[in-house]
Amino acid sequence: MKYQNLIIKPTLLLDRQKAIRNIKRMADKARANRVRLRPHFKTHQSAEIGQWFREYGADAITVSSIDMALGFAAAGWSDITIAFPVNLRQVAGLNRLAQQVNLGLLVESAETARQLDNLITAPVDVWLKVDAGYGRTGIFWQNQPALEAAANAVAGARHLSLKGILTHSGNTYGGRSAAAVRQIFDEAVGRLRQVQAILFELGYSAAISVGDTPGCTLAEEFTGIDEIRPGNYVFYDLMQYQIGACELDDIAVALACPIVALHPERAAGQGRIVIHGGAVHLSKDVLIDADGARNFGRVALLNENGWTPLDENNRVISISQEHGIIQADETLLNRVQVGDLIGVLPVHSCLTADLLRRYLTLDGEWINCIEKTIQ
Amino acid sequence: MKYQNLIIKPTLLLDRQKAIRNIKRMADKARANRVRLRPHFKTHQSAEIGQWFREYGADAITVSSIDMALGFAAAGWSDITIAFPVNLRQVAGLNRLAQQVNLGLLVESAETARQLDNLITAPVDVWLKVDAGYGRTGIFWQNQPALEAAANAVAGARHLSLKGILTHSGNTYGGRSAAAVRQIFDEAVGRLRQVQAILFELGYSAAISVGDTPGCTLAEEFTGIDEIRPGNYVFYDLMQYQIGACELDDIAVALACPIVALHPERAAGQGRIVIHGGAVHLSKDVLIDADGARNFGRVALLNENGWTPLDENNRVISISQEHGIIQADETLLNRVQVGDLIGVLPVHSCLTADLLRRYLTLDGEWINCIEKTIQ
Repeated sequence: MKYQNLIIKPTLLLDRQKAIRNIKRMADKARANRVRLRPHFKTHQSAEIGQWFREYGADAITVSSIDMALGFAAAGWSDITIAFPVNLRQVAGLNRLAQQVNLGLLVESAETARQLDNLITAPVDVWLKVDAGYGRTGIFWQNQPALEAAANAVAGARHLSLKGILTHSGNTYGGRSAAAVRQIFDEAVGRLRQVQAILFELGYSAAISVGDTPGCTLAEEFTGIDEIRPGNYVFYDLMQYQIGACELDDIAVALACPIVALHPERAAGQGRIVIHGGAVHLSKDVLIDADGARNFGRVALLNENGWTPLDENNRVISISQEHGIIQADETLLNRVQVGDLIGVLPVHSCLTADLLRRYLTLDGEWINCIEKTIQ
Repeated sequence: MKYQNLIIKPTLLLDRQKAIRNIKRMADKARANRVRLRPHFKTHQSAEIGQWFREYGADAITVSSIDMALGFAAAGWSDITIAFPVNLRQVAGLNRLAQQVNLGLLVESAETARQLDNLITAPVDVWLKVDAGYGRTGIFWQNQPALEAAANAVAGARHLSLKGILTHSGNTYGGRSAAAVRQIFDEAVGRLRQVQAILFELGYSAAISVGDTPGCTLAEEFTGIDEIRPGNYVFYDLMQYQIGACELDDIAVALACPIVALHPERAAGQGRIVIHGGAVHLSKDVLIDADGARNFGRVALLNENGWTPLDENNRVISISQEHGIIQADETLLNRVQVGDLIGVLPVHSCLTADLLRRYLTLDGEWINCIEKTIQ
């Protein structure tokens, strides 16, 4: 198995075919529904993987930080939205970006719009961040005075153009069925259309941008939406699988972990495999399985063509900084030895990729993430 | 405030005086109790901070990976234990280390001892990893056949010297009082002494090494112990505070986060501050507060001399990849503006430091972590 010989420590395997299939499926869906797809690149953070999106029609992207925007601008992307409330302390980076690319920024108050306008030196597009029910951030969709004040402040600013309204319906992550996710998604879109109507009355024409992988994957159509910004779908992960947004077979990354100890001697069903692969690789995102157990990742056997997920009783049940403990059934315990590699499907692929910062394809090719800039 | 002008994005502030006070206190305690202190450097991962330990008598260290061992060997440390079940796939790195430094490795089976001996080309010290009740990894303390087989395998190997037995009583992290932590600690030590007696009967003289910050901080004495390996105590964190292992004032790091949005308009007590500072900075370690709420970090006001923790109603209640949501009381909301910095005391300082990889002291000096080697 070619790629396995390259692995001496926790390594993020990437099944390129699955990732490209995921990229293509969303691109086709966006095209069929005539919405712009502005994929979120915080998931993969890689210039090379970014090219795969370009091959399927992407010419505009979303990122979650100014540093990431600078990295992808350097990689040739010229239309970038930073889907994060603008951090005014990084205005030097913003000004560099605004001169290089078609830059979209998020604002969620009139005051921030005014401050941004005072600091920025080149034109930028502005999206009003709207809270359409998730309750984390954004101007609450029913807070008409705040919405109007923010829109007026943007419209009155020298360097800002009001592009539209934008939401991230992160509450779809609480859904555990396609129907539940679709309901949250449709409700958010309905609320954004009400906000759009309010702004229209003020004389503003505002596009609608939505973005979350469960919603964009499971929604049947995108009526009234101008732009979608899902990101996780390139890899998916166990969380998306638990939500119902993907099949296990759609998950395009697995952490290959060296086995460092075996403890088959514990009570039946209590066998343990200790792996090099912990919180500094998988993060500490955790799922609660149907049986109530904590799940930091599902075990897969590695093979020449990728990996085969094992049944759900084989899972990472706890993680420390560098190592993970797998609860393993007897079949698995009898198949592995210290020094072997084993695969772990991550709970949250975005955080795992952010931690590892490079991929190994099944052909044995290394793919790097963009450099993390220090300041 | 000198250091604040240097901060444009999430930055890990380090109060050098507090860290040095923490380093000194543990060094004094070890000296008074005549145990060797082999501090765990996975917490800070910095060559420069490592020097502060040296000034207080440390000449031997613990790390959790071969990469970290290589980094600290390059920084001049010559006596290093990798407190992690040995990863046989990284034998090239192990051999480099074994030629450079006095290297200690962990083994938890006879088979691994034999494999290690076949692969390694220079002498190394071996510690048998013992599970003294934590239940995660190591040879179970009552599994006499496995203990004897492993000890015999090490003793019979060409390149391995049996140094002793070692445990990490991570179950002290479940304690929520000094008495509870001490009980777990003392019980583990008692079990290790039984293992030591068994090995003595076989003709082996085995040292005892224990290491966890709550136990080493709260234990009143170290009878029968040869070596302690705490690490987190250099910074402490909210988890240690909840356990009762430190005071809030002992916490030596705080994440300085730019404020990117304010939402004071929600219902009373429901005001929100949105910060740049999320899972890629704080990790996803979370505490459950006394009122049942999830706590990803406690809020502190920054000032010239460091920071002042606010009362526990001001906390990070949710985090996404890049941003965090603070539940803020009215007093706090009235004090801050978009663009200001605010401090967050981390739940788990080791993971936060691993993610940020550098520190800013209150004097405005940047301190880097060792480079993460790619392969």
